[in-house]
Amino acid sequence: MINYPNKKKIAKKNISHANLGMTLEKDIDLTNEYYLLENIAVIHKKPTPVQVVDVSYPARNKAKITEAYYKTPSTTDYNGIYKGKYIDFDAKETNSATSMPLSNIHPHQVEHLRKISNAGGIGFLIVHFKKHNKYFLLPSRVLFQFWDNKETLRKSIPYQAFLEFAYEIKFSLNPRLDYLKIVDLLIDNNI
Amino acid sequence: MINYPNKKKIAKKNISHANLGMTLEKDIDLTNEYYLLENIAVIHKKPTPVQVVDVSYPARNKAKITEAYYKTPSTTDYNGIYKGKYIDFDAKETNSATSMPLSNIHPHQVEHLRKISNAGGIGFLIVHFKKHNKYFLLPSRVLFQFWDNKETLRKSIPYQAFLEFAYEIKFSLNPRLDYLKIVDLLIDNNI
Repeated sequence: MINYPNKKKIAKKNISHANLGMTLEKDIDLTNEYYLLENIAVIHKKPTPVQVVDVSYPARNKAKITEAYYKTPSTTDYNGIYKGKYIDFDAKETNSATSMPLSNIHPHQVEHLRKISNAGGIGFLIVHFKKHNKYFLLPSRVLFQFWDNKETLRKSIPYQAFLEFAYEIKFSLNPRLDYLKIVDLLIDNNI
Repeated sequence: MINYPNKKKIAKKNISHANLGMTLEKDIDLTNEYYLLENIAVIHKKPTPVQVVDVSYPARNKAKITEAYYKTPSTTDYNGIYKGKYIDFDAKETNSATSMPLSNIHPHQVEHLRKISNAGGIGFLIVHFKKHNKYFLLPSRVLFQFWDNKETLRKSIPYQAFLEFAYEIKFSLNPRLDYLKIVDLLIDNNI
Protein backbone atom coordinates (compact mmCIF):
# COMPACT_ATOMS: atom_id res chain seq x y z
CA MET A 1 0.00 0.00 0.00
CA ILE A 2 1.35 3.39 -0.99
CA ASN A 3 0.73 6.20 1.45
CA TYR A 4 0.15 9.43 -0.39
CA PRO A 5 0.71 12.43 1.80
CA ASN A 6 -2.66 14.07 2.15
CA LYS A 7 -4.55 16.13 4.66
CA LYS A 8 -6.01 13.12 6.40
CA LYS A 9 -2.61 11.64 6.97
CA ILE A 10 -1.23 14.84 8.45
CA ALA A 11 -4.21 15.04 10.75
CA LYS A 12 -3.74 11.44 11.84
CA LYS A 13 -0.08 12.00 12.52
CA ASN A 14 -0.84 15.01 14.66
CA ILE A 15 -3.56 13.17 16.53
CA SER A 16 -1.24 10.29 17.36
CA HIS A 17 1.28 12.85 18.60
CA ALA A 18 -1.38 14.48 20.77
CA ASN A 19 -2.28 11.10 22.18
CA LEU A 20 1.28 10.28 23.10
CA GLY A 21 1.07 9.22 26.71
CA MET A 22 -2.56 8.16 26.40
CA THR A 23 -1.89 4.70 27.74
CA LEU A 24 0.07 5.95 30.73
CA GLU A 25 -2.73 8.41 31.41
CA LYS A 26 -5.28 5.60 31.17
CA ASP A 27 -3.27 3.38 33.53
CA ILE A 28 -2.98 6.18 36.07
CA ASP A 29 -6.71 6.95 35.76
CA LEU A 30 -7.55 3.29 36.45
CA THR A 31 -5.17 3.29 39.41
CA ASN A 32 -6.83 6.40 40.81
CA GLU A 33 -10.28 4.83 40.33
CA TYR A 34 -9.07 1.84 42.33
CA TYR A 35 -7.76 4.12 45.10
CA LEU A 36 -11.09 5.95 45.15
CA LEU A 37 -13.23 2.79 45.27
CA GLU A 38 -11.08 1.26 48.00
CA ASN A 39 -11.12 4.50 50.03
CA ILE A 40 -7.34 4.69 49.84
CA ALA A 41 -6.97 8.13 48.31
CA VAL A 42 -8.90 10.82 46.44
CA ILE A 43 -6.73 11.74 43.46
CA HIS A 44 -8.09 13.08 40.17
CA LYS A 45 -6.70 14.19 36.85
CA LYS A 46 -7.46 17.81 36.10
CA PRO A 47 -9.30 18.49 32.84
CA THR A 48 -7.13 19.61 29.92
CA PRO A 49 -7.35 23.42 29.83
CA VAL A 50 -9.08 24.73 26.74
CA GLN A 51 -9.40 28.32 25.55
CA VAL A 52 -12.93 28.67 24.21
CA VAL A 53 -13.23 31.25 21.42
CA ASP A 54 -16.66 30.59 19.98
CA VAL A 55 -19.80 28.83 21.16
CA SER A 56 -23.05 28.22 19.34
CA TYR A 57 -26.42 27.17 20.74
CA PRO A 58 -28.03 24.75 18.28
CA ALA A 59 -30.39 23.57 21.02
CA ARG A 60 -31.35 24.89 24.40
CA ASN A 61 -29.19 23.82 27.34
CA LYS A 62 -26.50 22.35 25.15
CA ALA A 63 -23.79 24.78 24.22
CA LYS A 64 -21.66 23.64 21.30
CA ILE A 65 -18.09 24.88 21.31
CA THR A 66 -17.17 25.59 17.68
CA GLU A 67 -13.74 27.14 18.12
CA ALA A 68 -11.30 26.43 20.90
CA TYR A 69 -7.61 25.78 21.43
CA TYR A 70 -5.59 23.73 23.86
CA LYS A 71 -3.82 25.84 26.47
CA THR A 72 -0.56 25.08 28.22
CA PRO A 73 -1.43 23.80 31.70
CA SER A 74 -0.28 26.08 34.52
CA THR A 75 0.03 23.24 37.03
CA THR A 76 0.58 19.51 36.98
CA ASP A 77 -2.18 17.18 35.82
CA TYR A 78 -2.91 15.21 38.98
CA ASN A 79 -3.56 16.14 42.58
CA GLY A 80 -5.47 14.99 45.62
CA ILE A 81 -5.24 13.71 49.15
CA TYR A 82 -3.66 10.56 50.60
CA LYS A 83 -3.23 9.81 54.31
CA GLY A 84 -4.15 13.42 55.03
CA LYS A 85 -1.34 14.64 52.79
CA TYR A 86 -1.54 16.74 49.67
CA ILE A 87 -0.31 14.83 46.62
CA ASP A 88 0.67 16.49 43.32
CA PHE A 89 2.25 14.99 40.22
CA ASP A 90 2.52 14.84 36.48
CA ALA A 91 2.95 11.89 34.11
CA LYS A 92 5.55 11.82 31.34
CA GLU A 93 6.43 9.29 28.69
CA THR A 94 9.63 9.09 26.73
CA ASN A 95 10.65 7.10 23.67
CA SER A 96 14.30 7.52 24.50
CA ALA A 97 16.07 4.55 26.04
CA THR A 98 18.85 6.63 27.56
CA SER A 99 17.26 9.72 29.13
CA MET A 100 14.17 11.84 29.67
CA PRO A 101 14.56 15.24 27.96
CA LEU A 102 13.80 18.10 30.34
CA SER A 103 12.00 19.78 27.44
CA ASN A 104 9.20 17.29 28.22
CA ILE A 105 8.40 19.40 31.27
CA HIS A 106 6.96 22.92 31.22
CA PRO A 107 8.89 25.45 33.34
CA HIS A 108 5.72 26.45 35.22
CA GLN A 109 5.11 22.81 36.11
CA VAL A 110 8.50 22.76 37.82
CA GLU A 111 7.70 26.06 39.55
CA HIS A 112 4.38 24.62 40.65
CA LEU A 113 6.06 21.50 42.10
CA ARG A 114 8.53 23.75 43.92
CA LYS A 115 5.68 25.66 45.55
CA ILE A 116 4.01 22.39 46.52
CA SER A 117 7.24 21.13 48.04
CA ASN A 118 7.71 24.37 50.01
CA ALA A 119 4.10 24.14 51.25
CA GLY A 120 4.70 20.65 52.64
CA GLY A 121 3.01 18.70 49.87
CA ILE A 122 4.34 15.58 48.16
CA GLY A 123 5.27 16.24 44.53
CA PHE A 124 6.74 13.94 41.92
CA LEU A 125 6.70 12.77 38.32
CA ILE A 126 5.61 9.36 37.09
CA VAL A 127 7.85 8.59 34.11
CA HIS A 128 7.36 5.80 31.61
CA PHE A 129 10.40 4.67 29.66
CA LYS A 130 8.61 2.96 26.81
CA LYS A 131 11.72 1.30 25.37
CA HIS A 132 12.43 -0.37 28.72
CA ASN A 133 8.75 -0.74 29.58
CA LYS A 134 9.56 0.58 33.04
CA TYR A 135 7.75 3.09 35.23
CA PHE A 136 9.41 5.32 37.79
CA LEU A 137 8.35 7.71 40.50
CA LEU A 138 10.82 10.59 40.43
CA PRO A 139 10.64 12.72 43.62
CA SER A 140 10.46 16.43 42.84
CA ARG A 141 13.69 17.19 44.74
CA VAL A 142 15.60 15.00 42.23
CA LEU A 143 13.85 16.77 39.37
CA PHE A 144 14.86 20.17 40.82
CA GLN A 145 18.53 19.14 40.95
CA PHE A 146 18.60 18.30 37.26
CA TRP A 147 16.38 21.23 36.31
CA ASP A 148 18.53 23.79 38.11
CA ASN A 149 21.63 22.56 36.29
CA LYS A 150 20.14 22.14 32.85
CA GLU A 151 21.86 25.19 31.37
CA THR A 152 25.33 24.19 32.54
CA LEU A 153 25.24 20.40 32.79
CA ARG A 154 22.73 18.49 30.66
CA LYS A 155 19.26 18.99 29.24
CA SER A 156 17.92 15.59 30.20
CA ILE A 157 17.76 13.19 33.11
CA PRO A 158 19.71 10.02 32.23
CA TYR A 159 18.03 6.64 32.56
CA GLN A 160 20.87 5.70 34.89
CA ALA A 161 19.77 8.48 37.28
CA PHE A 162 16.28 6.96 37.34
CA LEU A 163 17.77 3.61 38.33
CA GLU A 164 19.71 5.33 41.11
CA PHE A 165 17.50 8.14 42.42
CA ALA A 166 13.96 7.26 41.36
CA TYR A 167 11.71 4.40 42.48
CA GLU A 168 10.41 1.78 40.11
CA ILE A 169 6.64 1.31 40.05
CA LYS A 170 5.81 -2.28 39.13
CA PHE A 171 2.99 -2.68 36.62
CA SER A 172 0.25 -5.01 37.83
CA LEU A 173 -3.36 -5.86 37.06
CA ASN A 174 -5.20 -3.92 39.74
CA PRO A 175 -4.11 -1.34 40.59
CA ARG A 176 -2.14 -0.92 37.39
CA LEU A 177 0.53 1.39 38.81
CA ASP A 178 0.54 1.29 42.59
CA TYR A 179 2.50 4.52 42.99
CA LEU A 180 1.18 5.19 46.51
CA LYS A 181 3.31 2.27 47.69
CA ILE A 182 6.28 4.45 46.76
CA VAL A 183 4.67 7.51 48.37
CA ASP A 184 4.49 5.44 51.58
CA LEU A 185 8.25 5.00 51.35
CA LEU A 186 8.73 8.75 50.85
CA ILE A 187 6.52 9.52 53.85
CA ASP A 188 8.17 6.90 56.11
CA ASN A 189 11.64 8.09 55.24
CA ASN A 190 10.75 11.77 55.19
CA ILE A 191 12.10 12.18 51.65
CA MET B 1 -37.08 49.08 22.33
CA ILE B 2 -38.92 45.95 21.38
CA ASN B 3 -37.05 42.70 21.87
CA TYR B 4 -37.94 40.25 19.16
CA PRO B 5 -37.12 36.72 20.15
CA ASN B 6 -34.43 35.60 17.76
CA LYS B 7 -31.47 33.29 17.69
CA LYS B 8 -29.05 35.93 18.85
CA LYS B 9 -31.14 36.70 21.89
CA ILE B 10 -31.39 33.06 22.89
CA ALA B 11 -27.66 32.73 22.51
CA LYS B 12 -27.06 35.80 24.64
CA LYS B 13 -29.40 34.57 27.32
CA ASN B 14 -27.61 31.27 27.46
CA ILE B 15 -24.24 32.96 27.59
CA SER B 16 -25.26 35.14 30.52
CA HIS B 17 -26.56 32.02 32.26
CA ALA B 18 -23.26 30.25 31.63
CA ASN B 19 -21.39 33.23 33.04
CA LEU B 20 -23.46 33.35 36.19
CA GLY B 21 -20.90 33.35 38.96
CA MET B 22 -18.20 34.87 36.77
CA THR B 23 -17.53 37.70 39.21
CA LEU B 24 -17.34 35.40 42.20
CA GLU B 25 -15.00 33.17 40.21
CA LYS B 26 -12.85 36.18 39.32
CA ASP B 27 -12.73 37.34 42.95
CA ILE B 28 -11.67 33.88 44.11
CA ASP B 29 -9.06 33.66 41.35
CA LEU B 30 -7.58 37.01 42.43
CA THR B 31 -7.60 35.85 46.05
CA ASN B 32 -5.78 32.65 45.09
CA GLU B 33 -3.24 34.66 43.08
CA TYR B 34 -2.60 36.75 46.20
CA TYR B 35 -2.17 33.60 48.31
CA LEU B 36 0.25 32.21 45.73
CA LEU B 37 2.34 35.40 45.46
CA GLU B 38 2.54 35.78 49.24
CA ASN B 39 3.47 32.10 49.69
CA ILE B 40 0.39 31.57 51.84
CA ALA B 41 -1.24 28.73 49.92
CA VAL B 42 -1.18 26.98 46.53
CA ILE B 43 -4.81 26.79 45.43
CA HIS B 44 -5.94 26.68 41.80
CA LYS B 45 -9.18 26.49 39.91
CA LYS B 46 -9.46 23.37 37.80
CA PRO B 47 -10.11 23.92 34.10
CA THR B 48 -13.70 23.49 32.95
CA PRO B 49 -14.01 19.94 31.61
CA VAL B 50 -14.69 19.81 27.88
CA GLN B 51 -15.55 16.79 25.74
CA VAL B 52 -13.66 17.25 22.48
CA VAL B 53 -15.42 15.67 19.50
CA ASP B 54 -13.56 17.09 16.52
CA VAL B 55 -10.18 18.73 15.99
CA SER B 56 -8.72 20.20 12.83
CA TYR B 57 -5.12 21.12 12.09
CA PRO B 58 -5.10 24.31 10.02
CA ALA B 59 -1.44 24.84 10.87
CA ARG B 60 1.22 22.63 12.37
CA ASN B 61 1.49 22.61 16.17
CA LYS B 62 -1.80 24.38 16.69
CA ALA B 63 -4.75 22.06 16.95
CA LYS B 64 -8.10 23.81 16.48
CA ILE B 65 -11.01 22.26 18.32
CA THR B 66 -14.03 22.57 16.04
CA GLU B 67 -16.61 20.60 18.01
CA ALA B 68 -16.72 20.18 21.76
CA TYR B 69 -19.22 20.24 24.61
CA TYR B 70 -19.08 21.24 28.25
CA LYS B 71 -19.10 18.27 30.61
CA THR B 72 -20.48 18.14 34.13
CA PRO B 73 -17.52 18.39 36.51
CA SER B 74 -16.93 15.24 38.57
CA THR B 75 -15.31 17.13 41.44
CA THR B 76 -15.35 20.62 42.89
CA ASP B 77 -13.67 23.48 41.06
CA TYR B 78 -10.92 24.47 43.49
CA ASN B 79 -8.29 22.55 45.40
CA GLY B 80 -4.82 22.92 46.78
CA ILE B 81 -2.66 23.02 49.88
CA TYR B 82 -2.65 25.37 52.88
CA LYS B 83 -0.59 24.91 56.06
CA GLY B 84 0.16 21.37 54.90
CA LYS B 85 -3.55 20.60 54.65
CA TYR B 86 -5.55 19.58 51.61
CA ILE B 87 -8.20 22.21 50.74
CA ASP B 88 -11.17 21.53 48.46
CA PHE B 89 -14.14 23.72 47.65
CA ASP B 90 -16.65 24.97 45.16
CA ALA B 91 -18.14 28.42 44.62
CA LYS B 92 -21.86 29.07 44.24
CA GLU B 93 -23.91 32.17 43.64
CA THR B 94 -27.60 32.61 44.25
CA ASN B 95 -30.07 35.32 43.30
CA SER B 96 -32.44 34.26 46.02
CA ALA B 97 -32.53 36.40 49.16
CA THR B 98 -33.99 33.68 51.34
CA SER B 99 -32.13 30.46 50.54
CA MET B 100 -29.62 28.62 48.38
CA PRO B 101 -31.34 25.87 46.33
CA LEU B 102 -29.59 22.52 46.71
CA SER B 103 -30.18 22.02 42.98
CA ASN B 104 -27.24 24.44 42.58
CA ILE B 105 -24.97 21.61 43.64
CA HIS B 106 -24.24 18.45 41.63
CA PRO B 107 -24.72 15.19 43.58
CA HIS B 108 -21.20 14.01 42.69
CA GLN B 109 -19.78 17.26 44.04
CA VAL B 110 -21.35 16.41 47.40
CA GLU B 111 -20.03 12.85 47.15
CA HIS B 112 -16.60 14.24 46.34
CA LEU B 113 -16.66 16.57 49.38
CA ARG B 114 -17.71 13.61 51.54
CA LYS B 115 -14.69 11.62 50.36
CA ILE B 116 -12.43 14.60 51.04
CA SER B 117 -13.87 14.97 54.53
CA ASN B 118 -13.38 11.25 55.25
CA ALA B 119 -9.79 11.49 53.97
CA GLY B 120 -9.01 14.30 56.42
CA GLY B 121 -9.18 17.18 53.97
CA ILE B 122 -10.94 20.50 54.51
CA GLY B 123 -13.98 20.89 52.26
CA PHE B 124 -16.48 23.70 51.98
CA LEU B 125 -18.54 25.91 49.72
CA ILE B 126 -18.09 29.62 49.18
CA VAL B 127 -21.57 31.01 48.66
CA HIS B 128 -22.45 34.47 47.40
CA PHE B 129 -25.91 35.80 48.22
CA LYS B 130 -26.08 38.49 45.56
CA LYS B 131 -29.20 40.16 46.96
CA HIS B 132 -27.51 40.64 50.34
CA ASN B 133 -24.07 41.13 48.80
CA LYS B 134 -22.71 38.73 51.40
CA TYR B 135 -20.23 35.89 51.08
CA PHE B 136 -20.15 32.82 53.29
CA LEU B 137 -17.92 29.84 53.86
CA LEU B 138 -20.20 26.88 54.46
CA PRO B 139 -18.33 23.91 56.01
CA SER B 140 -19.07 20.66 54.20
CA ARG B 141 -20.50 19.00 57.35
CA VAL B 142 -23.29 21.63 57.38
CA LEU B 143 -23.90 21.04 53.67
CA PHE B 144 -24.16 17.26 54.30
CA GLN B 145 -26.82 17.79 56.99
CA PHE B 146 -29.06 19.71 54.63
CA TRP B 147 -28.26 17.48 51.66
CA ASP B 148 -29.10 14.25 53.52
CA ASN B 149 -32.50 15.63 54.51
CA LYS B 150 -33.42 17.25 51.21
CA GLU B 151 -36.00 14.61 50.29
CA THR B 152 -37.86 14.82 53.58
CA LEU B 153 -37.23 18.34 54.86
CA ARG B 154 -36.39 21.07 52.35
CA LYS B 155 -34.62 21.41 49.02
CA SER B 156 -32.62 24.49 49.93
CA ILE B 157 -30.43 25.90 52.68
CA PRO B 158 -32.13 28.94 54.20
CA TYR B 159 -30.24 32.23 54.44
CA GLN B 160 -30.90 32.09 58.17
CA ALA B 161 -28.88 28.86 58.37
CA PHE B 162 -25.96 30.65 56.72
CA LEU B 163 -26.14 33.36 59.39
CA GLU B 164 -26.13 30.66 62.08
CA PHE B 165 -23.91 27.84 60.78
CA ALA B 166 -21.72 29.39 58.09
CA TYR B 167 -18.96 32.01 58.39
CA GLU B 168 -19.12 35.35 56.67
CA ILE B 169 -16.17 36.22 54.44
CA LYS B 170 -15.71 39.98 54.35
CA PHE B 171 -15.04 41.44 50.92
CA SER B 172 -11.90 43.57 50.81
CA LEU B 173 -9.47 45.00 48.28
CA ASN B 174 -6.59 42.55 48.48
CA PRO B 175 -7.18 39.73 49.00
CA ARG B 176 -10.75 40.10 47.76
CA LEU B 177 -12.21 37.20 49.73
CA ASP B 178 -9.86 36.12 52.50
CA TYR B 179 -11.48 32.73 53.01
CA LEU B 180 -8.36 31.17 54.54
CA LYS B 181 -8.95 33.34 57.62
CA ILE B 182 -12.09 31.23 58.12
CA VAL B 183 -10.18 28.03 57.35
CA ASP B 184 -7.82 29.02 60.19
CA LEU B 185 -10.85 29.10 62.48
CA LEU B 186 -11.94 25.65 61.27
CA ILE B 187 -8.43 24.25 61.84
CA ASP B 188 -8.03 25.87 65.29
CA ASN B 189 -11.41 24.62 66.45
CA ASN B 190 -11.17 21.25 64.74
CA ILE B 191 -14.43 21.81 62.89
